[in-house]
Amino acid sequence: MTDQLPPDVIAQLTALDPEITAELAQASWALLTPFHEKAGYTAPQIDRDLAYGDDPRHRLDVHTADDDETGKPVFVYVHGGGFVRGDKHIPGSPQYDLVGAWAVRHGYVGVTMTYRLAPEHTWPSGAQDVAGAVRWLKQHIAGYGGDPDKIVVAGSSAGAVHVASFVAGQGGADPATIAAAAMLSGIYVIREPQPGEPEHVYYGPNPGPEVSSLPGLLDTTIPLLFSVAERDPARFQQEAAGVVSAWLARHGTVPDLVWVGGHNHMSTAGSLTVDEAALGTPLARFVDRHTSTKGTAQ
Amino acid sequence: MTDQLPPDVIAQLTALDPEITAELAQASWALLTPFHEKAGYTAPQIDRDLAYGDDPRHRLDVHTADDDETGKPVFVYVHGGGFVRGDKHIPGSPQYDLVGAWAVRHGYVGVTMTYRLAPEHTWPSGAQDVAGAVRWLKQHIAGYGGDPDKIVVAGSSAGAVHVASFVAGQGGADPATIAAAAMLSGIYVIREPQPGEPEHVYYGPNPGPEVSSLPGLLDTTIPLLFSVAERDPARFQQEAAGVVSAWLARHGTVPDLVWVGGHNHMSTAGSLTVDEAALGTPLARFVDRHTSTKGTAQ
Repeated sequence: MTDQLPPDVIAQLTALDPEITAELAQASWALLTPFHEKAGYTAPQIDRDLAYGDDPRHRLDVHTADDDETGKPVFVYVHGGGFVRGDKHIPGSPQYDLVGAWAVRHGYVGVTMTYRLAPEHTWPSGAQDVAGAVRWLKQHIAGYGGDPDKIVVAGSSAGAVHVASFVAGQGGADPATIAAAAMLSGIYVIREPQPGEPEHVYYGPNPGPEVSSLPGLLDTTIPLLFSVAERDPARFQQEAAGVVSAWLARHGTVPDLVWVGGHNHMSTAGSLTVDEAALGTPLARFVDRHTSTKGTAQ
Repeated sequence: MTDQLPPDVIAQLTALDPEITAELAQASWALLTPFHEKAGYTAPQIDRDLAYGDDPRHRLDVHTADDDETGKPVFVYVHGGGFVRGDKHIPGSPQYDLVGAWAVRHGYVGVTMTYRLAPEHTWPSGAQDVAGAVRWLKQHIAGYGGDPDKIVVAGSSAGAVHVASFVAGQGGADPATIAAAAMLSGIYVIREPQPGEPEHVYYGPNPGPEVSSLPGLLDTTIPLLFSVAERDPARFQQEAAGVVSAWLARHGTVPDLVWVGGHNHMSTAGSLTVDEAALGTPLARFVDRHTSTKGTAQ
């Protein structure tokens, strides 16, 4: 793992228009991919397309090391894509095998999962699918060296929304079976989505307050980490600051928030391994702390 | 440098009562000091008690490596102590030679400074002293391998208040001569101090709005980093969340905020070197980015 991307690459990333477009994705991955190719983005072993449910999108990949160790933390990654697209694996690219490889480098079992998409599947299908994957992992991950009591679920963007929704109990399962959850560039308060906004197709035009995860996030005892990228669009900046305000009001403290310096909405997950100081270091610290059997605080 | 303290040490730190007392300081340093002794907390060369002004407290120590390199970033540390106590160097302890050693390990020239204290010296003496030290460093630090255009000033607690005050222009000097500033567990809005509160003795009972640094921090173009410890007392949690809210309102973004997981008000600076993932990694990233001649963003 290299600690940091070169300054000129960070400068190019931060110079990109932060709006979430295909161009931003293309430009960000063009900058990041050479570093992932150099570092290697495939774990020693990848078991692909394991079915955790009946839908063709109910699939996950398990990334493991070449060893016989057991009892490892399990790091699950839920990709983004505006509720309507995205995948756990884009062949020939680091998306998102790199996250599995990052997890394995840190001593975890890595899991990349996908889920049903809108418009066919609407709220709370994402939370249900996270719940379904967790249920599958609880039963099967020991066979891959993972500890079913050390599952940490992380998601980006729409994936963070689904993780938050699961943690808030919207998936119809007890979220307290996971050890911790990380939400990267998520949205936690759903207001009245406008046509054309990603939320419109997943939540419909007039969702009730029950679809927002913030109240559930404030209530949970599951350890949480939030992140926001330096170059996240305004909406995501507002959500991150909103979590800080609500958390202070409720708990009297600032939540665990990682400001992902030098990165944008698309490059945050891509910073893992190749720019560890941005997100990987604090994220691994969070995972380690909440999966330690030595009994850290919480 | 070791990346992380053992989980049981973090658990002991987080179990301490967060109120700022002599007991908290004693207990925190008792936990941290063995790790600093093992890692080493003195830079290869330390030039002590250089006078940057006429007062006996106008003194700074310069920490350097054993090499002839020039043009290094200069990392200045301003200790805390409730405006009325504290020092740059407590003989026989890692306070705060460890910060100089940390800076040298990262390739910087380290500077630890002290300043005049209340009640004899009141606002804005702290900002004036930071300005005086910066002025001295501008003239002399090249002789130690430092680049006078790459000075980063950091402070903890009352030291963070003085750094913020300097950045806000309260020190009677142009703060834009520094490259960046970091405020660890600081206070940025001074309301009506109550007798017995540390601010009462430094600001007096009825300070005007001109003593608060927040407006100046929002105005500056100097890159800023803020941190708050997981176990900082309520007042510091509120200040950190307040900076996030005010920054969002002014800039539409979240500021660079480091949540120092596992640490308290006293142990934050002591996390450097021995628990890099908590603060050192993001802090060094911040310093590197804003002292790079390769032209990163900002």
